[in-house]
Amino acid sequence: MRISVLLAVALGGTALHAPPPERTLPPETERAATEIVKKALAGTKAAEIATSLTDRAGPRLAGSPGDEAAVAWGVETLRALHFANVRAEKAPVRVWKRRSESGEVVLPWPQPLALTALGGSVGTPEAGLEADVLEVSSLEDLDARAATARGKIVFFDSAMRKTTEMDGYGEAVGVRAHGASRAARSGALGVLIRSIGTDHDRFPHTGGVDYDAGTPKIPAAALAVPDAEMLTRLGRLGPVRVRFRLACGDEGMGESANVIGEFPGAGKPNEIVLLGGHLDSWDLGRGAVDDAAGCAAAIEGARLAAGASPRPARTIRVILFANEENGQGGAKAYAAAHAAELPAHVAALEADSGSGAPTGLSWLAGPSAEPELRALSDVLAPAGAARLEGNGSGGADVGVLRASGVPLFSVLQDMSHYFDVHHTANDTAMQLEPASLDRLSAAIAAFTYAAASAPEPFERIPESLRIEPKKR
Amino acid sequence: MRISVLLAVALGGTALHAPPPERTLPPETERAATEIVKKALAGTKAAEIATSLTDRAGPRLAGSPGDEAAVAWGVETLRALHFANVRAEKAPVRVWKRRSESGEVVLPWPQPLALTALGGSVGTPEAGLEADVLEVSSLEDLDARAATARGKIVFFDSAMRKTTEMDGYGEAVGVRAHGASRAARSGALGVLIRSIGTDHDRFPHTGGVDYDAGTPKIPAAALAVPDAEMLTRLGRLGPVRVRFRLACGDEGMGESANVIGEFPGAGKPNEIVLLGGHLDSWDLGRGAVDDAAGCAAAIEGARLAAGASPRPARTIRVILFANEENGQGGAKAYAAAHAAELPAHVAALEADSGSGAPTGLSWLAGPSAEPELRALSDVLAPAGAARLEGNGSGGADVGVLRASGVPLFSVLQDMSHYFDVHHTANDTAMQLEPASLDRLSAAIAAFTYAAASAPEPFERIPESLRIEPKKR
Repeated sequence: MRISVLLAVALGGTALHAPPPERTLPPETERAATEIVKKALAGTKAAEIATSLTDRAGPRLAGSPGDEAAVAWGVETLRALHFANVRAEKAPVRVWKRRSESGEVVLPWPQPLALTALGGSVGTPEAGLEADVLEVSSLEDLDARAATARGKIVFFDSAMRKTTEMDGYGEAVGVRAHGASRAARSGALGVLIRSIGTDHDRFPHTGGVDYDAGTPKIPAAALAVPDAEMLTRLGRLGPVRVRFRLACGDEGMGESANVIGEFPGAGKPNEIVLLGGHLDSWDLGRGAVDDAAGCAAAIEGARLAAGASPRPARTIRVILFANEENGQGGAKAYAAAHAAELPAHVAALEADSGSGAPTGLSWLAGPSAEPELRALSDVLAPAGAARLEGNGSGGADVGVLRASGVPLFSVLQDMSHYFDVHHTANDTAMQLEPASLDRLSAAIAAFTYAAASAPEPFERIPESLRIEPKKR
Repeated sequence: MRISVLLAVALGGTALHAPPPERTLPPETERAATEIVKKALAGTKAAEIATSLTDRAGPRLAGSPGDEAAVAWGVETLRALHFANVRAEKAPVRVWKRRSESGEVVLPWPQPLALTALGGSVGTPEAGLEADVLEVSSLEDLDARAATARGKIVFFDSAMRKTTEMDGYGEAVGVRAHGASRAARSGALGVLIRSIGTDHDRFPHTGGVDYDAGTPKIPAAALAVPDAEMLTRLGRLGPVRVRFRLACGDEGMGESANVIGEFPGAGKPNEIVLLGGHLDSWDLGRGAVDDAAGCAAAIEGARLAAGASPRPARTIRVILFANEENGQGGAKAYAAAHAAELPAHVAALEADSGSGAPTGLSWLAGPSAEPELRALSDVLAPAGAARLEGNGSGGADVGVLRASGVPLFSVLQDMSHYFDVHHTANDTAMQLEPASLDRLSAAIAAFTYAAASAPEPFERIPESLRIEPKKR
């Protein structure tokens, strides 16, 4: 009895508290993934592919002629690289257009200002908007001084912190998204923000403004950092008055497309590993780091994984999303059109963090995925991506799959230079880091191979974590 | 006799071959100059003064409203800093004005181009200039292919080398100055150059074009480096066609002024040590490194030298030159108005190399000046400026004094970042290096003190070296 009691206790303990049998990478998968990393580190076409997109389509805000050129580029490029089932799946997109913009200090003396309309901003009257400046340091500071904002142009002067990942951006971006409506509520006429960026160059950074429903929409623009600093200095001398003109605005709905191509799986072709980047860009630059780099790394990651031996069992699908920057129309259209197929999506990864060196893998899935991912980390180490971080969120576009429980991944990258050029005219092919893009492609490829070859799919995101991603 | 013969030989030898008695710094001068350096390294107002000019006057091409504001700033600032005899001496200046500009690739597909008219360029027809591109690597390459240039837009694609001093600029700038006339001679319709700059940012660099008399003036613009690189890549795919519009042109002569202030000498007030920077700037940026930095270092150099004890014997005169960038109208006016006084100018130094760290002193004077300058080098060592280099040329503005034999000096500086922002919109106060500006001010101040205190003036430039400086 005693023995049987002890046995029962021991068995019960095992059943209740011991971890499930460790899942690690099958030796054959580990070997092939290791080879993939080695091959990618010897050089990929990622920088060449990214450059080609920027040369062919340049600025490509959803619904623009450049966006149309980008879709054509995507279809041609995936076909030329031997993807199967290449197609452009239409997506309705919000269209916003910048026509012209300018601004200047009026008092204490004339000075031109380098500024740009925030994406989605309404325009000013044609003669411009002229008013005294109320300088504030944050949304909270504005709220505290709301009584003095009426009739003013509110200037948010806070500087973005330079961090290795998204932390600095996360802290700073609220002002860009919500500053206009917050200021409008207090009767302000317009908003200028110090650019959400980490450079000291004379490039204003655009990016989406997020008007609250029911609050008057007022014009919102970003000042280049040197111009914001000057405005702050002038403010120390006395009252400052500025004028700016924005000719821009929404132009209703238009059409774009997600570009999709696949490498069908060898044994389980109906199961899908999804790799994405976004094809669109803001309109000022050529969208090299944001996000031709991600598109190219996804393409190269898929090619490297699909080309390895033994062939992966599952289908590797690359999607170059439409309209990430201004509404995620592409992601929403994909989720809607492929709703029936989402249970067969075993993993989704988006590359949208530039061309900086990879440092690790971020994940969001059921807890049983962890041991396998830990084993994969060792494989990713030669690419510099050995770190493993839970509680990830994928990327903005694949985030729409979270509600369906699709396991989400992203490669963590060194983003310390990313926000120097993010959403500026300076986002060109010269900002790409080719060797880091090879490493990024390596990490994506090895992950993809493992996800597409594992005997069992990763455990899906637990119900409790399938919340909607936060608005950006 | 033997002895007397030997003595005669010895005396003769001395008279003919031995160096003249070494002139070094009087101990009192050396001590005071050393103190000046120490004081300056502890901190000057140079960065603050330079920033104040950029905030007050911003872009200030000769004859513009900004230029007028700069003259007012100069007079106010020198007065506030207790200079004596502060005045604005009028100077006729060439006026050129940029109104608007844009450009794009037409074939193989549309792409906007970041470009800017070169200073002095004629405009294009209002609808723009559109033509096929002939890409060449140099003036010589153009000459070799002159037969194919007719009706084309000639694109000079050569990259400027990044060097510590002026070497890279010297090699590259000929294309900017002479490319337009050279292309016009072969029947070209317009010229685009890869910016003469060492950055990879999307800022085109302006700067003067130098039309030959008797050759048709054709429009000339600079492409930002990333846009030039793209044009080169497109050229590898096949024929390239571009269009650009420049609304700009000469507007006749206008008026500006050299701003002058002095610290009168204690014993020889009629002898003058001249320190200069230039007050004007190109019109795209705020002229911080070019040349608010030089103006500020000259001002601080003068203040530090004049404030030392014992007081310098000679007058220290600071001149903030008008119109260095577009014709040197200020320098010419000064030389003409002060012709009678030039023999009493014992030294002239211009600071026009940005705010990089000083590395030495460049000089052009009679050979007997060298030992004294060598002794001074030891004093400049704590500021990092111990190097001594002969065969200097002063700066562009003080260069006009060369014909009169006025000894010319300049502080050598680390210019490795100078051409990243030179003549671009990005030349703002954020590019200033305050600690290096302190060191620059230290070097200028110590030199100035020595020149203003020496028992005898430096030997003047030998007649054979009083040639006109080359055109920039």
